[in-house]
Amino acid sequence: MNALVLTSRGGVELKEVPTPERVGECLVRVLMAGICGTDLQMLEGYAGFHGIPGHEFVGVVERADRDADRAWVGTRVVGDINVGCGRCEWCAAGIKEHCVDRSVLGIRGRDGAFAEYLTLPAANLHAVPDAVDDASAVFVEPTAAACRIFEQMTIDDRARVAVLGDGRMGLLVAQVIRTATPHVTVLGRHERKLAIARALGLAAAAADAPIDPGSRYDVVIDVTGRPQGLVRALEIVRPRGTIVMKSTFHGDAAIASWPIVVDEVTIVGSRCGPFKPAIALLASGAVRVAPLVARVARLDEHSSAFDDARRSLKVLLAPGARRS
Amino acid sequence: MNALVLTSRGGVELKEVPTPERVGECLVRVLMAGICGTDLQMLEGYAGFHGIPGHEFVGVVERADRDADRAWVGTRVVGDINVGCGRCEWCAAGIKEHCVDRSVLGIRGRDGAFAEYLTLPAANLHAVPDAVDDASAVFVEPTAAACRIFEQMTIDDRARVAVLGDGRMGLLVAQVIRTATPHVTVLGRHERKLAIARALGLAAAAADAPIDPGSRYDVVIDVTGRPQGLVRALEIVRPRGTIVMKSTFHGDAAIASWPIVVDEVTIVGSRCGPFKPAIALLASGAVRVAPLVARVARLDEHSSAFDDARRSLKVLLAPGARRS
Repeated sequence: MNALVLTSRGGVELKEVPTPERVGECLVRVLMAGICGTDLQMLEGYAGFHGIPGHEFVGVVERADRDADRAWVGTRVVGDINVGCGRCEWCAAGIKEHCVDRSVLGIRGRDGAFAEYLTLPAANLHAVPDAVDDASAVFVEPTAAACRIFEQMTIDDRARVAVLGDGRMGLLVAQVIRTATPHVTVLGRHERKLAIARALGLAAAAADAPIDPGSRYDVVIDVTGRPQGLVRALEIVRPRGTIVMKSTFHGDAAIASWPIVVDEVTIVGSRCGPFKPAIALLASGAVRVAPLVARVARLDEHSSAFDDARRSLKVLLAPGARRS
Repeated sequence: MNALVLTSRGGVELKEVPTPERVGECLVRVLMAGICGTDLQMLEGYAGFHGIPGHEFVGVVERADRDADRAWVGTRVVGDINVGCGRCEWCAAGIKEHCVDRSVLGIRGRDGAFAEYLTLPAANLHAVPDAVDDASAVFVEPTAAACRIFEQMTIDDRARVAVLGDGRMGLLVAQVIRTATPHVTVLGRHERKLAIARALGLAAAAADAPIDPGSRYDVVIDVTGRPQGLVRALEIVRPRGTIVMKSTFHGDAAIASWPIVVDEVTIVGSRCGPFKPAIALLASGAVRVAPLVARVARLDEHSSAFDDARRSLKVLLAPGARRS
């Protein structure tokens, strides 16, 4: 099959590789996959991953290794990206995303979705309802990551929340948070993206606009994907407020940490989340992603696709598409 | 009166200054004051404070400006260091430590305890029972800061807690946490201080000893006062565990923040705490501070006293003491 491969030299190459096989898992033909900030960070060396990246996808189950999973064949699916060892106490508690020996689709020890096929255990799969089209289904994984925030803290309808970062993840997180509180503001540096936020009915403002102490936010969600994000978050969160860190990046951030102590701020790292509520939000239209899609590209267009993903909103890859 | 004054050039000088007066406040003759890590950081430029430092003290009320406070005269007291504006919503909620216009004894807009006298409102004062001697009473303020952790999170008797830092604050925090769970380990770099931890009945180990993933701690309390503390805390906290940041320092820390996200760690800034439980812990002997006192010095010995405080455990200043 065709696949994009992250080489040890840090580049991405389109290669012909064997179709994957894993004992006990399902073979999924990838319809569409999304390029995420983490993928771009991995090109910079983040996570030390080599292989096929990609963890946001929608596909169709083509084959099931286990008889018990045959009913999945033909189903359009999205997939939870963490696969645990199945034996440790984390796995026993159903929290496979923290299993020390986990593999993670396209990130850690497991080839991912920038390919014609991938494999996952049936336990990781979720059927996609007809109300969610392929492009929207690619957003289930990041929408689930946004829903994770609700598992970590209570956000009631009086909470004033800033989403710091106007990229694809910011516009997604802000829509998810809006289901809990109307007081959500997207803070960014790109007038074009802030305009999309406003078109989605969200408040939006410049990230570096001065803020007076009384207007600081109860919750700031940092989805900038940049070291400076946390620094700015500390400036705009209220005393005893909460900063949610949603995006990973490679390298160190220089942080003056004393405001964390003096203002008694809580910082919460937040990663993968529940798929069911994410699918429901996309199916109902509460979260709209069409305005976030900048382009659908073929695998052989990877070079310009990654460039566009750096500058723009969501770039999708369609591994089955051929040059016409 | 005699006082140590932090000058704009960053040094400390012993000076003759006017005895303080503040409308509506009590005049307290300082019996003993403690040199804390924050004081040492202020000498490096932290908080931009100029004036008389010192915020850990025990004293005797000599005069009350308001008739209603006359009953305090003659009482041996310790004092809450935050004085709010009394008008904002933080003050209305009784959380004057986050009032934007607050003054803080010896730290912000208010002269402190490294002097023969200080003033505080009577509302800030707490009487010291006879069971708590002067040297121990100086530890009420930092013990209260340790008790603040219990207001911020539940630490049950199964929780495995590491106190990162074997200085005066580490040995104090570890004793306070031990009142909630027996599984407390002091991690440090100084064999002499770790020995004191063991003499206090605490588990103690080298801060840089290798740790296997299954042994990581539920809660890590960083009292190192060093930028590297948070980096090490992130290495030894378990996924979904909590890091409490207890000490402030001047300057930036270079933090690789992705483990916060990947391990979904919570970081909680923690500052001032409740005096009543702190006094009770010192009165009962649950928290023992005598082994932490390295030296009692006169104000005119400030130079060597501050040097000792940098290297050693708690150095106390006795402002009333004269060269014999």
